[in-house]
Formats: sequence, C-alpha cells, structure tokens
Amino acid sequence: MTNVLKNALLPNPFKNGITKSMGKFTLYYEPYLLALNHVFTVASGSRSSTPVVLVALAYDGYIGFGEASMPFYLGESHESVLRFLGKVDLSSFSDPFLAEDILNDIDNIAFGNTAAKASLDIALHDLLGKMMGQPWFKIWGYNPENTPNTSFTIGLDEADVVREKVKEAEPYKLLKIKLGLDSDKMMINAIREVTDTPICVDINQGWKNREEALEMAHWLADKGVVFIEQPMPKSQMDDNAWLTENSPIPTIADEAIQRLSDIHLAIGVYSGINIKLMKCTGIREAHKMIELARALDLKVMLGCMTETSCAISAAAQLAPVVDWADLDGNLLISNDIYQGMWLENGKIILPDRPGIGVLPKVN
Amino acid sequence: MTNVLKNALLPNPFKNGITKSMGKFTLYYEPYLLALNHVFTVASGSRSSTPVVLVALAYDGYIGFGEASMPFYLGESHESVLRFLGKVDLSSFSDPFLAEDILNDIDNIAFGNTAAKASLDIALHDLLGKMMGQPWFKIWGYNPENTPNTSFTIGLDEADVVREKVKEAEPYKLLKIKLGLDSDKMMINAIREVTDTPICVDINQGWKNREEALEMAHWLADKGVVFIEQPMPKSQMDDNAWLTENSPIPTIADEAIQRLSDIHLAIGVYSGINIKLMKCTGIREAHKMIELARALDLKVMLGCMTETSCAISAAAQLAPVVDWADLDGNLLISNDIYQGMWLENGKIILPDRPGIGVLPKVN
Repeated sequence: MTNVLKNALLPNPFKNGITKSMGKFTLYYEPYLLALNHVFTVASGSRSSTPVVLVALAYDGYIGFGEASMPFYLGESHESVLRFLGKVDLSSFSDPFLAEDILNDIDNIAFGNTAAKASLDIALHDLLGKMMGQPWFKIWGYNPENTPNTSFTIGLDEADVVREKVKEAEPYKLLKIKLGLDSDKMMINAIREVTDTPICVDINQGWKNREEALEMAHWLADKGVVFIEQPMPKSQMDDNAWLTENSPIPTIADEAIQRLSDIHLAIGVYSGINIKLMKCTGIREAHKMIELARALDLKVMLGCMTETSCAISAAAQLAPVVDWADLDGNLLISNDIYQGMWLENGKIILPDRPGIGVLPKVN
Repeated sequence: MTNVLKNALLPNPFKNGITKSMGKFTLYYEPYLLALNHVFTVASGSRSSTPVVLVALAYDGYIGFGEASMPFYLGESHESVLRFLGKVDLSSFSDPFLAEDILNDIDNIAFGNTAAKASLDIALHDLLGKMMGQPWFKIWGYNPENTPNTSFTIGLDEADVVREKVKEAEPYKLLKIKLGLDSDKMMINAIREVTDTPICVDINQGWKNREEALEMAHWLADKGVVFIEQPMPKSQMDDNAWLTENSPIPTIADEAIQRLSDIHLAIGVYSGINIKLMKCTGIREAHKMIELARALDLKVMLGCMTETSCAISAAAQLAPVVDWADLDGNLLISNDIYQGMWLENGKIILPDRPGIGVLPKVN
C-alpha cells in the first residue's frame, strides 16, 4: 500500500507508526496512550493513562483495525507488544480467509502476549468482515436486538461522592462495584439510598474465608446484587465451588479463566465465566469459549480493559449471546480515535457496518 | 419470485414442486427418489432407492439449496418431511442473517424431524454464503487443504465378490466395513488378501459382550483397522466405556449421539463421535458439535446418508476440521442433480464457490 493510501485510510495516530510488509499483507502499528477521564487510584498508586497499541492490517485494498490494551497489572507493555508484532510474519499466507491457520501460527510465536495476539485477531476479523460485506454478529447469525445492557463501574469513594456518581450513572441498568474492603457494606448502602438499579460486584479474589463469603453473598443478594465476580483466590477451588453451590446468586470466574483451554476449570466451581478479548487472544477464541460455555451450562459475561471503541466494538459483536456485558472501557477515555458500538439507555447498540463496525474519527 | 425466475434458477425436479411464499422468503420443495447404483440388501429386505426432499430458499434474488434424506430406518419419510415443511413460516423474519433465531424457531416447530430441519439449515446457509460471496469453509476460517480422505463402504458379500469390490475401491485411502456377523473375520481376511489400505469398521451396536468386543478390537487393530464405530448398544454405557478404556484403537459413537445436547454422553464412554447433518439438524449445529467435541478432546467423524451432492457438499464444508470423513453418499446414486465437492484419489476437494458450493446440473 502506498503512503497516499496509508494516509487516506489510516487514522492520524498511525501516521508516524511502523509499516511492515509481509507478502500480500501489510501491518501498521503504533503505540498510543489512552487518556483517562478520571485519575484512577488503587492501593499501589494513581494513573491517568493506559498504554495501547493501535494495529491495522491491509490486504488487497481492504483494511482491518485492531488494538492491544495493556493495563500494567497484566504484564504486557508497549515494549512487549511491539516486540511481539515485530516477530509476526504472514508472508507465507496467500489468503486472510485461512484464519484458523493464521491465528494458530500467531499463537505459537510465543507464550502469553494475549493482548498483542488479540490486536491481530481483531484486525484480521475486521478485514474479513469487510471482505464479506457483513458485521461479525451477522456472520455468526446473531440477533442484534438481543444485546444486554452494559454495566457501568462506580469507583470506590466516600459515601457522598458515591451517591453523586450513582446519580450520574442514571442511564445504566446495571452498576458494577469493586468490593473487597472494610467499606464494602457502606458502599452498597450508599448506593441503595439513591437507586434500586441492579448491581454486580467484583471481588478480584478478595475474599479468603468461605463462610464469611457466603454470609456476604446472602447480604448482597438481599441488596439486589445479581452476581459476584471472582469471589475468592482462584487457587481456592474447593472454597469457590462450595460458595457457588450455596450462594443465592451466581459466581463468575475472572482471574481463574483466561482461555478456551481453561474453561473446564470452571465446571462445578463457578456459575459462569468472564471473557475478555485481551486475555483470550481475540474474538475467534472468545466465540469458541461462548459456544463451549453455553454447552456446559455456564453463564457468560463479556468484559473489557480500558480500550478504544475498536476493541470494545469487536467484543460487542458477541454481545447478543451473553448474559451480561461490562463493555464500558471506551467511556472512560477522552481520546478515542474510533466510533463504533454505542449505548442507548445503557443498552449496547451494534452498528450495521462490516467487520467490527468501527470508523476512524475524522482528525 | 416469478415462475420465469423459478424456472431459470431451479433444477428440473423442482419444476412441479410446491412453492410457498413467506413474507420476504420463498420456499420451494419437491419429493424426489434417489436411484441407487446397486440394490442394497439388509436382513429386513432389499431396496433400490432412498427418498429425499429437495429444498430451495429464495430471498432478495438469491437462492439457497437444501436437502432432507430419509433412509427408512430413521423414521422420516416424504410425508413427514412435507408435513413439517408445510408448518414452516419465516414471514416474521425480515433478514436471513438472523440465522440463530430462524433455526431455533424451526427447531421448536416439532420434536424430531431432524432431516426436515437439516434441509432448511442447509438451504439457509447456502443462501447466506451466497449473500456474503464466500463458501462456508472460508467463512469459518478453515484451510481446504486439510480435508481428510473419505472412507468408501464395502458391502457384505462372498469373499470373492469382496476381493473384487476392494480392487475397484483402489482410489480410496480408507475402507469402511459394516461388521457384526459371524462372517466378520472372513471379510477382513478377504480384504487383507488384496490390499493393506486402512479400514474402519461400523458395528451398529452389534456386539453385546465386552470381553468378546475387546478381543475382537485387538484382532482388528492387528489387521490395520483404525477405529470402531458404535461397538455395543448405546444403552450399555458402562460396557462401551470399559471397551474404550481398554481398546487399542478409538471407538466412535454413532447411534448414541444425535445432537449437541447429547455430546456430554460421549465423555468417558467413547473416543469420539460421528456427526451426520440429517441427525443433528444441519451445519450450524454440526459446527457447534465439532467445536465442543474438540474442546472435550473427542475425535470427530463426519458421516452421511444416501444424499445428493447438495447435503454432501454442505457437510464437506466442515471436513477440514474433522479426523475422518465418510462422505460417499453421493457416489452411490445415479440421479444426482447437483455438482459440488469432488474427490481426488479419495481426498475431499472443496469447490471455491459461495455457500455450500453446489451448482444444479444442466438438465
């Protein structure tokens, strides 16, 4: 692809990026920093940005967009993703429709690097969908009206601030709260003073004792909480299984389940799984995970990282067949370079555009 | 669609058939008798034909072909399929891409009727593939070079005739023999006198005693048999499981597994499953069954009935991701009205045409 075409087709942040020619394919990639609307504070410090790598894959005049998002706690970084993309070589493939072979090849380059792998999976599927002239939710045969409401995360804060945040989150039909501190009951009570919107809670392995966990599960169920994400450490399989068996509300595995090959670990231990593209290497594997989870009677939640509308819209293609979606990553940033899926009163709306349905914003 | 278009697009056997207008869709169907090249003799009698119903589904100028095949022992017939198709109404669907909803709706019309359901699934997928301009093996991302050799069935007969049949089957790289009689060892020995081509055997639940079954499995393995299909009655789960655990070659469930919801019954009982479109309602469910079987480490075999190249080519779209294929149904008939997949030295070759890749033969 010439630079003229590159400049015409690629959004601004790509224009100083890396161009890699690989036979019939051309790969473009560029590190980028997502600016968070609000500084995010956790025990280990504060941060105001999340590193991503923007990716574009061109073939025969078509171009597909992808993205890797690397929140620091997952072990990938600009450097590791650029190093991985530097090793990718698609020149032996004559046809992007050989998607299983191409993505197996990429998966075998190195262990881990799941965000880097996801960026290529997303770009390849965007490309393929455009070549077929259809969005992936249609290619899979899904009804776009069946998308769930996305949950919206309310950060930990003082009771007054929490009540204020909840009022601002009025359009959302499901609130997500990260628990695991002494202030948990205060948080939930503060929310219940101002709204009866259903809540889901993410414990991030924070509970250690199963009897206390069950007691809290009952208390939360009484307060209108609909499920509990990763209640106890993933290593405590017996405790998580016991809690799941006795809990009045479903438990969802997050840290415990990364990829397709992990799903058997959830059987009898959790009620369902949280699937995130950046953990599972992209929408091809996510789609297989959903089919498998369904066949095993496991609930399915779709999650995300802080991402542009690119990765969020890719995940949203699968939203019609999940129980819950937590796809608010693109709402948390001020420098999204794409438009794609959007929300109407909290419900995910899928654009009827080919591939993953994103358009670069004019810039 | 006008009759002019109908006559231009549909093969001859449709021309006196039933036309059913359903909103934006039009369904055409016609009972048809497949003429067998050789009279087929079993204990209960002889037959020289197999009833099928040919189906075509039109939408927006596109047309998709499907087929129901009803060998008498499966309980469907011309009458039952016509009755089922008479109940189908797609007029509430504005878009064929709502495939999950459409096929769930069809599945819920009545219990059973899996061949009738498969005819609609195949026609819908042929239509969708044509709208996307791609064959389904490409839409699924499969490499067409990975198709297996099809097996070719050698009927029970006198040793001299068996040796003659095997010589005629020289292009095939896998021979399939139906066993379960006193003459079993004679059959295998007769074949081994003229060829060392690998063999697979189908017992059709014919073995009743597990110790004898295991002894026979060892004898067969020594003779170059690669797997055993449905060794004992499906109700003898413990015996089949014991045989699978001890057998030197894999066991494959056929009668024991019909649909996606049955696959869990194979875990720990068989080494793999035989998937047939006419049992499982079509390629959408077959695709899900393969994904699930793969995730559960089960082997996968693709089977068929006596069918035209329509249903065979639909099944063949999945051939790149199965271990074994027994897709010889279209080779057994003299009045195929389609051309589609073909064989080169026994290996399945997929045409690079949209949908299921079939063309009506000029007639």
